[in-house]
Amino acid sequence: MKKLVVIALALFTLTVSQAQEQKRPDPQPAPENSESFRLGMAGYTFVKFDLETTLKTLQRCDVHYLCIKDFHLPVASTDEEIAAFHKKCADYGVKGYAVGPLYMKSKEDVDKYFDYAKRVGVKLIVGVPDYELLPYVDQKVKEYDFNYAIHLHGPDIKIYPDAEDVWEHTKDLDPRIGMCLDIGHDTRNGKDPVADLKKYHTRVFDMHLKDVTGPTKLGYSVEVGRGIIDFPALVKMMRKVNYTGVISLEHERNMDDPFMGIAESIGYFRAMLVATK
Amino acid sequence: MKKLVVIALALFTLTVSQAQEQKRPDPQPAPENSESFRLGMAGYTFVKFDLETTLKTLQRCDVHYLCIKDFHLPVASTDEEIAAFHKKCADYGVKGYAVGPLYMKSKEDVDKYFDYAKRVGVKLIVGVPDYELLPYVDQKVKEYDFNYAIHLHGPDIKIYPDAEDVWEHTKDLDPRIGMCLDIGHDTRNGKDPVADLKKYHTRVFDMHLKDVTGPTKLGYSVEVGRGIIDFPALVKMMRKVNYTGVISLEHERNMDDPFMGIAESIGYFRAMLVATK
Repeated sequence: MKKLVVIALALFTLTVSQAQEQKRPDPQPAPENSESFRLGMAGYTFVKFDLETTLKTLQRCDVHYLCIKDFHLPVASTDEEIAAFHKKCADYGVKGYAVGPLYMKSKEDVDKYFDYAKRVGVKLIVGVPDYELLPYVDQKVKEYDFNYAIHLHGPDIKIYPDAEDVWEHTKDLDPRIGMCLDIGHDTRNGKDPVADLKKYHTRVFDMHLKDVTGPTKLGYSVEVGRGIIDFPALVKMMRKVNYTGVISLEHERNMDDPFMGIAESIGYFRAMLVATK
Repeated sequence: MKKLVVIALALFTLTVSQAQEQKRPDPQPAPENSESFRLGMAGYTFVKFDLETTLKTLQRCDVHYLCIKDFHLPVASTDEEIAAFHKKCADYGVKGYAVGPLYMKSKEDVDKYFDYAKRVGVKLIVGVPDYELLPYVDQKVKEYDFNYAIHLHGPDIKIYPDAEDVWEHTKDLDPRIGMCLDIGHDTRNGKDPVADLKKYHTRVFDMHLKDVTGPTKLGYSVEVGRGIIDFPALVKMMRKVNYTGVISLEHERNMDDPFMGIAESIGYFRAMLVATK
């Protein structure tokens, strides 16, 4: 009888220890934070990877918001394909919160992409409209009741180099037209993204998280924390202006194998949130 | 002639832009910090990977100190093999700063591992000696003038569950015998590693960086920042006690594919250093 008890106990212990192994959730969610804003991922980070790899990576990093790029969900997608896309995102705990960046060079582009956004079911477009299309974008924003965040791109392209440029071009338009404040490109155009967030926050509807090595065109994208951006100041300013949008990592480094860089950047930013409280 | 100038300019521009591409260092070093301590990696993190993968990963994370495990440099290595090992580390900008953890269950083990450390050329052993061997370790430490950091292991094994236990067993021995303060295992034994660092810092010669989900044996290792350890307090205490050793990431999560977890943990800890200044 004693022998039986010993065997039973041994089996019980084995079962418990196996159960413990299995009980460990993976990924372990990051602790809840009380921020007004959310951490997300810009789809462009995964320009060389399919949706499944993208979503698995978000899941591992415990990131739940994705700005959808058209290479993951083509503009010509049917409603069924869009539904399948959302279902797949949901399977990984991810929500597509916006579409873009989308370059708009004609009224037809504007029409097409507003229709796309509506069918995707988001209320935020990250776009780059030619300057002369802004009055038309203004009409469409009123018609659709969307926010339209113009992506600024530093000295690389001619239009919208920085936050000031977007502000100057949009301040007299519908207040639903504003910017996706890309802190890296703003820096590369010689501006201070923290000061710009303070100045223009009423028109900041999306943000791109990254770091860069210098305040000129020669500055390039690196893992968050390895460049020159002042992240403690940025996070404090995001709180001060009560930013309520998403700040999405747009990682443009080692794009053939970005995974460690993505993880390092996410870890760095999460620690900033904790340490600057 | 004008045509030639245009062609020459075009070629020049092409060359410059290619040079710019090539000039981007990879990895981009993390900014210098002014800490008294250094960030390192515990070799055990790479128990399933060879030395080359280990070193490449350290290089990508910009980590330059490795605690050498014997599966990467066997105890029976010849002097030539040891020299080749150091050469290979140096190729990746990495320095082996200690050996271990090494379990010592007999005087022969103690002899063997002190000899190994001496041949490897380090002055720090991370070890786990059976309690009754401590007087012999005391002799050897005097003989070799090494620091000997006893690795504490929480409730998993019988000896040295936490910092207090190491302290109680070593406080009357040579001051070169102390601990590798594993903040995760100390936490899992119900202790506060920040308070323990304060109490026992004179005998803390190495630290293991990790995070855990709970303050009991059921707590398990996760990416730094996803568990319960108070990292702002830890970093501030490391400065307060002027810790001058290495804090090495011992990542014990997804050990078949630890790379993203390693990067996230390193990023998190680096941000802590910046944000708590």
